[in-house]
Amino acid sequence: MRVRGTVRHDIKQLASTLNSWLVNHGNVTLVTAESLTGGGVSAALTAIPGTSSYFLGGIVAYSNPAKADLLRVPGAILENPGAVSEPCARAMAEGVREVFGATFSVATTGLAGPGGETERKPVGLVYIAASGPEGTTVEEHRFDGDRESITEEAIHAALCLLHDRIRIWLDAGN
Amino acid sequence: MRVRGTVRHDIKQLASTLNSWLVNHGNVTLVTAESLTGGGVSAALTAIPGTSSYFLGGIVAYSNPAKADLLRVPGAILENPGAVSEPCARAMAEGVREVFGATFSVATTGLAGPGGETERKPVGLVYIAASGPEGTTVEEHRFDGDRESITEEAIHAALCLLHDRIRIWLDAGN
Repeated sequence: MRVRGTVRHDIKQLASTLNSWLVNHGNVTLVTAESLTGGGVSAALTAIPGTSSYFLGGIVAYSNPAKADLLRVPGAILENPGAVSEPCARAMAEGVREVFGATFSVATTGLAGPGGETERKPVGLVYIAASGPEGTTVEEHRFDGDRESITEEAIHAALCLLHDRIRIWLDAGN
Repeated sequence: MRVRGTVRHDIKQLASTLNSWLVNHGNVTLVTAESLTGGGVSAALTAIPGTSSYFLGGIVAYSNPAKADLLRVPGAILENPGAVSEPCARAMAEGVREVFGATFSVATTGLAGPGGETERKPVGLVYIAASGPEGTTVEEHRFDGDRESITEEAIHAALCLLHDRIRIWLDAGN
């Protein structure tokens, strides 16, 4: 677990870097699908002026019916392996990208606690997915700390993954 | 403009009070529709443990097509008087409540700046709407300060309006 102020600073820096790449690109749009981060990724992105030229919006799908109805996550995934899983993160990222018709998306799902853990799914288990023109990447993380720390680490991880995916895409000449 | 730390503290307090009312109520659900706050209202609500028993999720509709497609805001409203208006806030709150099938909703739209202002719509102009079983209320605010201050004041105003509406509903025996 890192010092809290450092994570917050890094979140601002990442959102600012993404903004500097995308604000004048003219041909890329970005959306979010959030469960455990509850709107925090979207709020971090929109904290930077100019976001409205590429950030279309996002869906906070806190309940399973919201994940199914609004993000098109298949019911079979929500049943098993469940909402906190690699397939669910992937389906959320792909679903929200389709719903908005966006170039890139990022999705978060996990357990921020306190409570809710099972033997196989401890508090701090987080899946982050980013989807774009060249496919979808999913990462598994295990973060320490309280609800606030875990949420901030997840926001940070989401922006990092998005940063890396968009950097590669831009470097390829897009 | 108030001291920033005070607003943040009040936001946490309001989210915590709402949580204490709703977490064991068993018969009320809550959703958000956010434009200028960009997910901040939703993030404030979900910062409190236990939210998942009543908070279904939210839609961050930053672009006008997202407001039309996902929140069912009529195109005629988005054209005139536009996204930053009383009718748009009302339509966002009513739309998101319908989309999720929730008991209560809150919506935010406004100009956080810098830039984007017109003669009739200055930076800091914010509309907040709350919708519930007994109708929809819309408030107009004019906040001072920078983008961050205006966003925080708008999050605070959204939670205040929700707090007042839900308090009245609970006091009526619901």
